[in-house]
Amino acid sequence: MSETTRRCVCPGSFDPITLGHLDIIRRASALYDEVVVAVLFNPAKSGQGMFSVDERVALIEGAVAAEEIPRVRVVSSGGELLVDLCTREDVCAIVKGLRSGTDFAYELPMALMNRHLTGVETVFLPGAPAFEHVSSSLIKEVHALGGYGLDLVPPNVAEALQARRDA
Amino acid sequence: MSETTRRCVCPGSFDPITLGHLDIIRRASALYDEVVVAVLFNPAKSGQGMFSVDERVALIEGAVAAEEIPRVRVVSSGGELLVDLCTREDVCAIVKGLRSGTDFAYELPMALMNRHLTGVETVFLPGAPAFEHVSSSLIKEVHALGGYGLDLVPPNVAEALQARRDA
Amino acid sequence: MSETTRRCVCPGSFDPITLGHLDIIRRASALYDEVVVAVLFNPAKSGQGMFSVDERVALIEGAVAAEEIPRVRVVSSGGELLVDLCTREDVCAIVKGLRSGTDFAYELPMALMNRHLTGVETVFLPGAPAFEHVSSSLIKEVHALGGYGLDLVPPNVAEALQARRDA
Amino acid sequence: MSETTRRCVCPGSFDPITLGHLDIIRRASALYDEVVVAVLFNPAKSGQGMFSVDERVALIEGAVAAEEIPRVRVVSSGGELLVDLCTREDVCAIVKGLRSGTDFAYELPMALMNRHLTGVETVFLPGAPAFEHVSSSLIKEVHALGGYGLDLVPPNVAEALQARRDA
Amino acid sequence: MSETTRRCVCPGSFDPITLGHLDIIRRASALYDEVVVAVLFNPAKSGQGMFSVDERVALIEGAVAAEEIPRVRVVSSGGELLVDLCTREDVCAIVKGLRSGTDFAYELPMALMNRHLTGVETVFLPGAPAFEHVSSSLIKEVHALGGYGLDLVPPNVAEALQARRDA
Amino acid sequence: MSETTRRCVCPGSFDPITLGHLDIIRRASALYDEVVVAVLFNPAKSGQGMFSVDERVALIEGAVAAEEIPRVRVVSSGGELLVDLCTREDVCAIVKGLRSGTDFAYELPMALMNRHLTGVETVFLPGAPAFEHVSSSLIKEVHALGGYGLDLVPPNVAEALQARRDA
Repeated sequence: MSETTRRCVCPGSFDPITLGHLDIIRRASALYDEVVVAVLFNPAKSGQGMFSVDERVALIEGAVAAEEIPRVRVVSSGGELLVDLCTREDVCAIVKGLRSGTDFAYELPMALMNRHLTGVETVFLPGAPAFEHVSSSLIKEVHALGGYGLDLVPPNVAEALQARRDA
Repeated sequence: MSETTRRCVCPGSFDPITLGHLDIIRRASALYDEVVVAVLFNPAKSGQGMFSVDERVALIEGAVAAEEIPRVRVVSSGGELLVDLCTREDVCAIVKGLRSGTDFAYELPMALMNRHLTGVETVFLPGAPAFEHVSSSLIKEVHALGGYGLDLVPPNVAEALQARRDA
Repeated sequence: MSETTRRCVCPGSFDPITLGHLDIIRRASALYDEVVVAVLFNPAKSGQGMFSVDERVALIEGAVAAEEIPRVRVVSSGGELLVDLCTREDVCAIVKGLRSGTDFAYELPMALMNRHLTGVETVFLPGAPAFEHVSSSLIKEVHALGGYGLDLVPPNVAEALQARRDA
Repeated sequence: MSETTRRCVCPGSFDPITLGHLDIIRRASALYDEVVVAVLFNPAKSGQGMFSVDERVALIEGAVAAEEIPRVRVVSSGGELLVDLCTREDVCAIVKGLRSGTDFAYELPMALMNRHLTGVETVFLPGAPAFEHVSSSLIKEVHALGGYGLDLVPPNVAEALQARRDA
Repeated sequence: MSETTRRCVCPGSFDPITLGHLDIIRRASALYDEVVVAVLFNPAKSGQGMFSVDERVALIEGAVAAEEIPRVRVVSSGGELLVDLCTREDVCAIVKGLRSGTDFAYELPMALMNRHLTGVETVFLPGAPAFEHVSSSLIKEVHALGGYGLDLVPPNVAEALQARRDA
Repeated sequence: MSETTRRCVCPGSFDPITLGHLDIIRRASALYDEVVVAVLFNPAKSGQGMFSVDERVALIEGAVAAEEIPRVRVVSSGGELLVDLCTREDVCAIVKGLRSGTDFAYELPMALMNRHLTGVETVFLPGAPAFEHVSSSLIKEVHALGGYGLDLVPPNVAEALQARRDA
């Protein structure tokens, strides 16, 4: 029995959460005692994304509850460094899904910088192949042009996307 | 306080252990309750490497002790799947250092296969840049041609390499 | 003798068409019964590029005619998904040139998404090495700074670029 | 209606065929009038693989028949260039599955060389993500160590692998 | 003794110069008779960066002087092609640091285009691993959010960044 | 006028030299005062390659003479580290052609190790796209199967390859 609570953070803009994100959160939940899902936003650009920060948090909470993923807490974070959030929340690891070697080349400088700043580790989980084509931006692009990628997002997000179109 | 002991495995041939390996073991030790370092070998080719499996185990144990890295156990494993070792040792994660996107492309099929077979996760830690050029095979190649890369291995391994040359 | 007409689409913004694009169109023409070249544009940003959508279509038609590439039809498409165009035009394959592994990592999610949406395949042809440095954006950048990359575009495009500068 | 029979080749060692291979063959069959599956072997090393060349051909034929994939012919080819087989069989395209950018960097020189020698094209299809971890060599490695990846090969191949173990 | 003065250029936006840039300049200085450091800027967007072009030049000059790197000259260049600067300054090579294969895929078309235009070579030096996470943009991002990456820039740049925050 | 003679080395097994190698040697000759072409071999495996070490040296010398590339010297080196050759020959840079990001990931550890051992730099030149598919091993493979890639090697090498086949 461990004497340490091992907590990780899954950061992202989650605009909106996809099945790919949810898969990483579920797997992180099996590897850590608590998963902090952090919706990162830029205060200077709030109001820009498709969903507001509060809506994104609510969609994640709804998706996590529907899937009964245990030990997940959703927060939002704007105008601060991710490492400061990690320190405040007593997080030992930033968990990221990795889809390709190109992804890794993009993520590496940030991971090294974060470790340089406070020692926090970034651990990479290989993304589930079934979700290799799923990203928030691609979902939004397809949606904007009238397409349906609704089976690639949690049901509550599919409803929210549908509601936007119907509006 | 967690009720689960979170155990990981750091697999490799470790012929011999380098400072790059040791860095990953140290960081894994900070992230998990116990680190099982597994020296993998092919029973049909035992006796081929530079050091015997028993010597490799002893060199790792010596290096870990000298660095006072806590909660590390060293085992050897031949003629079995890594996932079978994971099940037997109650390991939730295989920890691997990752140096480049090309590394990831090489590791990905094995990580997916292992998860497919038993559900065990592979988590990737970005290798420390200082050790980006350090691999057992490159160390051995330099050593064979009379060069000195002895500052790239733990002191006890440097001694063992030196002893081989003097012999 | 086949009973099916095999039609492919070569999509892009073609602002303007380069010798690299033309090479892919020529090779696609040898592989398929008909090549639909589709100039994709964003209706909300029409009027932004260097050439208008109509000019781009005309430049492609001129270049294809000058090279006598058979069985090519040029269309434009804005405000719709590429897969919808594929369905409407009875296209079985989206043909893309591929210059590097990084290109592939960028293209893969879109290819998987398109196959997910309607089953249409994306087939990748390795770009001809001679055109590895040729892209519309690099041509425009060089042109804007007074340089000449006019031997990297079809003659009619070179004329159009020259006319823009003289104007 | 096309006047040309468009024929492609799917080359490989297929020792043995996997579900990943079968997926590419099925998709190629939808894109071409005929698919020639070519089991390539080195005459100087015949008898080395897990299955003989004749067994590999029979396993492919069995898997293709069970899946009812139309218009597929299986041949073997040793001691000749792939481009010579393409010329003899009147093939216009070599079809390869592509799993990653690293795969592409490996395949590119061969594709360019083949086009240089006779003009034959190599077209790349993105591998289905579900089979990203599936390769003949990984299947054999898992099998040799007593593991089961039998759901990653066609049923007739699973039987053949099982028979080898029972023997 | 050579009869040719071999001069290279290290181009960049240098907003501001980092320890990674300085390492490349120092190593270039050991390989060439003179190093021209060129601060590239877009005249249409002057005044946008964190530091003005003149400030960037002064910060580079200060950092190079403090490190006593010999034979370095700092210039700025806006509204012209890099190859035109190379011709005017009689430069035989553009020197770039390379951190990853993805970096190379990004740089390759520009290198090929520049050689196509005037024959000037681009030579790539592998970036020092210690600076793999250091880029001007990441430094600025960390700084904007109140973090300290000041040990990743030359001391005079650290002072300038600190002064901006205090202001 | 420089007071330093700037010498580089182009290392390789050159079994045999290709047009891709020759292009790098020619470009290196324009960048350095002297180019040392080093045929590296493993003394324990001498006699294995297609051409003997002496034949490889002679083929390089013949190709360099035919192209009138100035200031090139050809040596062979076995059983020693490349960095030791660099020190002995007073070489400041190892010059390598780079064809892709995957190439770079492969070369990087050796480049870092060499710089770690003696400070010698490795500089990478982007390979000419026209020779992207040209490697000694692919040439030999095509040749062994009766194919002709003779336009991808210098004329004297084409003759030597032809003589081998006729023998």
